[in-house]
Amino acid sequence: MIKANDQNIKTWIEVPENSDFSIQNIPFGIAKVDNEVFVATRIGDTVINLYKVARLGHFNVAKEVFASCRLNDFMLLGKQATRDVRDEISAIFNATNELAKNKMELQEALMDISEVEMLMPVEVGDYTDFYSSEQHAYNVGCMFRDPNNALLPNWKYIPVGYHGRASSIVVSGTPLYRPKGQQKPKDDEPPVFGPCKLLDFELEMAFITYEGKAIGDSISTDEADDHIFGMCLFNDWSARDIQKWEYVPLGPFLAKNFGSSVSPWIVTLDALEPYRTEGSIQDPKVFDYLKCDGDKNIDIKLQVAIQPENTEETIVSNSNYKFMYWNMNQQLAHHTINGCNIKAGDMMASGTISGNDESAYGSMLEISWKGTKSVAMADGTERKFIADNDTVIMRGHAEKDGIRVGFGEVSTKVLPTK
Amino acid sequence: MIKANDQNIKTWIEVPENSDFSIQNIPFGIAKVDNEVFVATRIGDTVINLYKVARLGHFNVAKEVFASCRLNDFMLLGKQATRDVRDEISAIFNATNELAKNKMELQEALMDISEVEMLMPVEVGDYTDFYSSEQHAYNVGCMFRDPNNALLPNWKYIPVGYHGRASSIVVSGTPLYRPKGQQKPKDDEPPVFGPCKLLDFELEMAFITYEGKAIGDSISTDEADDHIFGMCLFNDWSARDIQKWEYVPLGPFLAKNFGSSVSPWIVTLDALEPYRTEGSIQDPKVFDYLKCDGDKNIDIKLQVAIQPENTEETIVSNSNYKFMYWNMNQQLAHHTINGCNIKAGDMMASGTISGNDESAYGSMLEISWKGTKSVAMADGTERKFIADNDTVIMRGHAEKDGIRVGFGEVSTKVLPTK
Repeated sequence: MIKANDQNIKTWIEVPENSDFSIQNIPFGIAKVDNEVFVATRIGDTVINLYKVARLGHFNVAKEVFASCRLNDFMLLGKQATRDVRDEISAIFNATNELAKNKMELQEALMDISEVEMLMPVEVGDYTDFYSSEQHAYNVGCMFRDPNNALLPNWKYIPVGYHGRASSIVVSGTPLYRPKGQQKPKDDEPPVFGPCKLLDFELEMAFITYEGKAIGDSISTDEADDHIFGMCLFNDWSARDIQKWEYVPLGPFLAKNFGSSVSPWIVTLDALEPYRTEGSIQDPKVFDYLKCDGDKNIDIKLQVAIQPENTEETIVSNSNYKFMYWNMNQQLAHHTINGCNIKAGDMMASGTISGNDESAYGSMLEISWKGTKSVAMADGTERKFIADNDTVIMRGHAEKDGIRVGFGEVSTKVLPTK
Repeated sequence: MIKANDQNIKTWIEVPENSDFSIQNIPFGIAKVDNEVFVATRIGDTVINLYKVARLGHFNVAKEVFASCRLNDFMLLGKQATRDVRDEISAIFNATNELAKNKMELQEALMDISEVEMLMPVEVGDYTDFYSSEQHAYNVGCMFRDPNNALLPNWKYIPVGYHGRASSIVVSGTPLYRPKGQQKPKDDEPPVFGPCKLLDFELEMAFITYEGKAIGDSISTDEADDHIFGMCLFNDWSARDIQKWEYVPLGPFLAKNFGSSVSPWIVTLDALEPYRTEGSIQDPKVFDYLKCDGDKNIDIKLQVAIQPENTEETIVSNSNYKFMYWNMNQQLAHHTINGCNIKAGDMMASGTISGNDESAYGSMLEISWKGTKSVAMADGTERKFIADNDTVIMRGHAEKDGIRVGFGEVSTKVLPTK
């Protein structure tokens, strides 16, 4: 039992109704106030400067890791140490802890979320993107190949994945520019060059790893949990027209690497444990190295909204992380079965998460079915793909027995081509 | 004119005949002696501790960058600063510099290459692999598709590339384990799992970048030279059987990310300037953002040898970097045309470099023509692909008017599956 997960704990910090940041959450992020940058957590709308808390002697780890501008040093301490810190934070802010509540120095570590700028939480070493939602792979297969053979032959044997660009992963709130590049809109004419016309989001979640093993070693599905620090929301921006022309035979490149967006708070795998749920039945049977014991999927409700400039948002998707065919343990075991090493701060995204129902599709490609139908916005306009100055917002949370553990949001405005 | 390139300069350090490390080379690397790690250069077989040289007051930059265990801090100084350091090294070791030659403190910065362990030269942020040799793409197309349509339609419009794994790039001398993974040897039977049976090298070169621009900006072909620090030899290890089963539709993943190997000395683009040569005629005409002025290819002779355990090596390929269809400037301009940012220490590899002649093919896949013919080794054995305990050695150098600027070698032993 992870102490901080105790469903009976209340906190002496005010938590608004339906807040993603219950005392059972205790995520980690990097916050900036004036020119100070520090590791932080959040309860309700209160951000807590963990460097200040550490300087009060609260944690059994070097306080300097909390003065860092990235979580990597903290993650390098390993699972037991980061779990202990989370447990200690839970104890400090427990409603029964009158001593802490009345301690002036501790109050100085607290601030409202509105006073804080959230920065990129981790220095991403390597970024991998999987393709692990069956409905998404099926939809794409139907659109671009054949509904009778929508899934490629390898899809149910391999958690298919590819390497993506780490340098252009940005935190929520960072605008991105519409990419330009080569496209081939007409099959019988030469390619053209210009701004992407079919700009899309992909609703994904990513997990962030602790340090792994040496090159040549593998991480088993049993060991995987101990190598996963936590998760965040992930928007895998995609330029569909650039992708279509470039991706054969070596995969997506410029269609993806102009930017990906993440939510700022890393919710620990520990905090998500109570929300485990069973996964899909995997048929054909998977190879031994991909077999898992117990429930490894997680019930996380996901939502995507599009907000045209100066107007209200429209929700365009309601999906769930539990729809994944391949779980994180399988993804990590597959990634390392050949001896590939992983590092603290690597990020591995799920691939677009689509449910069976149209309302649960995780990309405009699927929602507009390759641009054949429009989605009505609240302001009366319509969308097949993402327009300039649209903001795309993704949200996600798990909830059970009145306890909510959520991710906040990843919100990204698309600016016209630079 | 870059001062250090002056063809008339001689050095007071002994340089063996046919050494890659003339006084006109002055590459940069990371060396380790006992427990000390430092930025180094090499002239002949003499390694020079640049941190010791810096402490004597020689360079106009903070001496701490030379005490680093990676070249990234040095590269962050930018092209002019690193060029000035190279010019200053050239001046110190110029044969006419009697003062330097007789300085005891400077002698203490020198050691023989045999006393030194060379480490990974850069912390690779992102690694990209291109596919820019026409003969290689043509050979692969002939083998797996159709000799009449060997090149895919996008190949002459786009310097095709994909993202690879940075964490598993290792320096020459680091052994790698034969990867295991899924393969599908028979089309009408399910996949199998086990050690890779078709392990291959790919003869490539890589360039390493200076810090680039912000997300949303692009680097033009004209600006590219100013963003390229230098080059090294690159062995893009490939598991052909794993690749064949996994790579559709998102590209190579486990077939590549178990390891790539690099030579330890980064030869600056400045040092390679005298060896520029014209490239292929590009037809159809390329888009404006890919147009280049002047000769951008480089004449670098490349060689691959296989050395079975406890016996002599056999040379299996003699190729040349000048065979590239797409040059580095075009690769970098393409990589950033969509606003993708690059960082100091990013590595971009060329793709397998194959010449028109069979003796210039850059992979066993091509040399053995998909395993249909064997290559005789000096010890009487034969190879179609790489066997356990084989060492693969790649070498490269440019040479003109008796001046040689080379890379040394990247040498990697393949150990049996762990």
